[in-house]
Amino acid sequence: MKNSENHPVCILLSEQALGQHHAAIAEVMGTRPFELLSIESAVASGRRDIDIAFISRDVTGRSTKHELAPALQACYTVLRESAPLQWVHIHSAGADRQIYLDLRARGVQIHTSSGANAEVVAQMALTGLLALARKFPQLMAAQRERRWAPRLGSDAPRDLAGQTVVLVGWGPIGQRIADYLRLLGMKLIVLRHSSPEPTHDGVHMVSFKDFATVQPQADWLLLACPLTDQTRHLVDARALALMPRGAGLINVARGEVVVEADVIDALRSGQLGSAYLDVFEHEPLSAESPLWTMDQVIITPHTAGHSDGNAQRVVGMFLENLRRWVAR
Amino acid sequence: MKNSENHPVCILLSEQALGQHHAAIAEVMGTRPFELLSIESAVASGRRDIDIAFISRDVTGRSTKHELAPALQACYTVLRESAPLQWVHIHSAGADRQIYLDLRARGVQIHTSSGANAEVVAQMALTGLLALARKFPQLMAAQRERRWAPRLGSDAPRDLAGQTVVLVGWGPIGQRIADYLRLLGMKLIVLRHSSPEPTHDGVHMVSFKDFATVQPQADWLLLACPLTDQTRHLVDARALALMPRGAGLINVARGEVVVEADVIDALRSGQLGSAYLDVFEHEPLSAESPLWTMDQVIITPHTAGHSDGNAQRVVGMFLENLRRWVAR
Repeated sequence: MKNSENHPVCILLSEQALGQHHAAIAEVMGTRPFELLSIESAVASGRRDIDIAFISRDVTGRSTKHELAPALQACYTVLRESAPLQWVHIHSAGADRQIYLDLRARGVQIHTSSGANAEVVAQMALTGLLALARKFPQLMAAQRERRWAPRLGSDAPRDLAGQTVVLVGWGPIGQRIADYLRLLGMKLIVLRHSSPEPTHDGVHMVSFKDFATVQPQADWLLLACPLTDQTRHLVDARALALMPRGAGLINVARGEVVVEADVIDALRSGQLGSAYLDVFEHEPLSAESPLWTMDQVIITPHTAGHSDGNAQRVVGMFLENLRRWVAR
Repeated sequence: MKNSENHPVCILLSEQALGQHHAAIAEVMGTRPFELLSIESAVASGRRDIDIAFISRDVTGRSTKHELAPALQACYTVLRESAPLQWVHIHSAGADRQIYLDLRARGVQIHTSSGANAEVVAQMALTGLLALARKFPQLMAAQRERRWAPRLGSDAPRDLAGQTVVLVGWGPIGQRIADYLRLLGMKLIVLRHSSPEPTHDGVHMVSFKDFATVQPQADWLLLACPLTDQTRHLVDARALALMPRGAGLINVARGEVVVEADVIDALRSGQLGSAYLDVFEHEPLSAESPLWTMDQVIITPHTAGHSDGNAQRVVGMFLENLRRWVAR
């Protein structure tokens, strides 16, 4: 094994991260010999002796899970072909990309940045829910037409207080969303993987097998779960048909948690009254998708978690993992 | 005086309110003789012997403070010409329309519904602030062009936590907005009429004379105050120039709290980065206003407080005032 205490530890990271975090990494490594190798150099030189990799947001760039830029493909090749690779720290909360499934399968540890953007994603889900509930798409359409059209009488939005949200997922994002929804006076039913306590902090907890039972109460279905075998295609035509007519859907989880064609059908029929979608079965969402132009739908381009403070939170988590690894 | 205990009390209200609330009013009046007179009947018959009036939202209809429909003009004439009029309950939180200033000047009590829609207006202010902070206008413009444009790198929104809001007004709306802003991790500076305690519940309180001092800290200026001599034209070119470049403005108070031409100039120059405006110097906002088409501005038509639960909350307040009056 090359990982003797004397062999310099080879840490792969972006040119940008190398420039910004060299000193902080050096401090964590202490007396341990190490080498920082930029992804660009590894690709160019053909080196495949990486021990640790830090995949910051700038590495992913505008690539999506489904469409990889050549530079990101090349980076993934370095990871795949680096036999000594022990662990990778990634900027995202989810590790459902194929590369990470494959690395895990061969024993490489994948550390996510779960929690780093939880506050931001929760705020984005809240923004989407409020914008739909308060009729911003309709009001902003009237604005474009310079039309003064107050929402009076039967056009008035419904009070949010007292409405029920079925929230799928109870990780850092779900728990933070719950704080906001409670302050809005909304009733919460949380769907969890593990067999839950019946109530927790005033929240009604149920397990996945109860999904069909609680859906008829869902004024809103809010998805904030990881993509797993249990959540893949959870929201299909049947699940949508169980909701009250005109209910709303918020998805800040993963596109594959819904059957997108079924969501489109439910929006067309009016069974779903509105939707805020940040994630899609295929990203980028095809320009042909009917979702773009539905007037009760808000589409954002998998950008719910983007915020100027994230990079610092993510590198903080990487450095903490590195510290633990050095001290192990 | 006609208001002897034996003379039936004449209560003016809309046909709709009469139909919906006859029984509830009768219960409050108990053995006291009373007559419910619809506004439509009073106008048609020329009767001017009103003692009490209940102006529900349907009476105002689509009229604004500045442009009154003939039916509302006629209703105001009944109020003006009813010598016995003792008090009026109105559906809005503010009583700054000329009719109410005039009635007050002659000794008629005006009871507002302050608080009835405070939760809803606070939610709308929150929605506007979040939508601007999370770049919804830009994202929804990209949506209309079927364009996948995540907010990465220098396009990423700023973390809201740690940003400062200068909040003008500490009534039911302002206090409720503060609850939401605190949960978002924002710093709050509240501008109050009365000489305030320096801090209250973690909020930094200042008086109007300190406005210029705190404006340089304002990432956001949020107006949720009544229109008074102190707040009229509070936000002018000078106040806007004191804010950090690119700051945001939210107005759910009254249009006259700002100098609208100065707000437009500040938006054009980039001194104001974004604005959410529900109220305007003249309502409806003229179709000629440049505000409609500014891409960093969200315009709603004085509809922040509209919600399906308001009518019930307003009539509850009217009945409570009526109960107190009967028991006085």
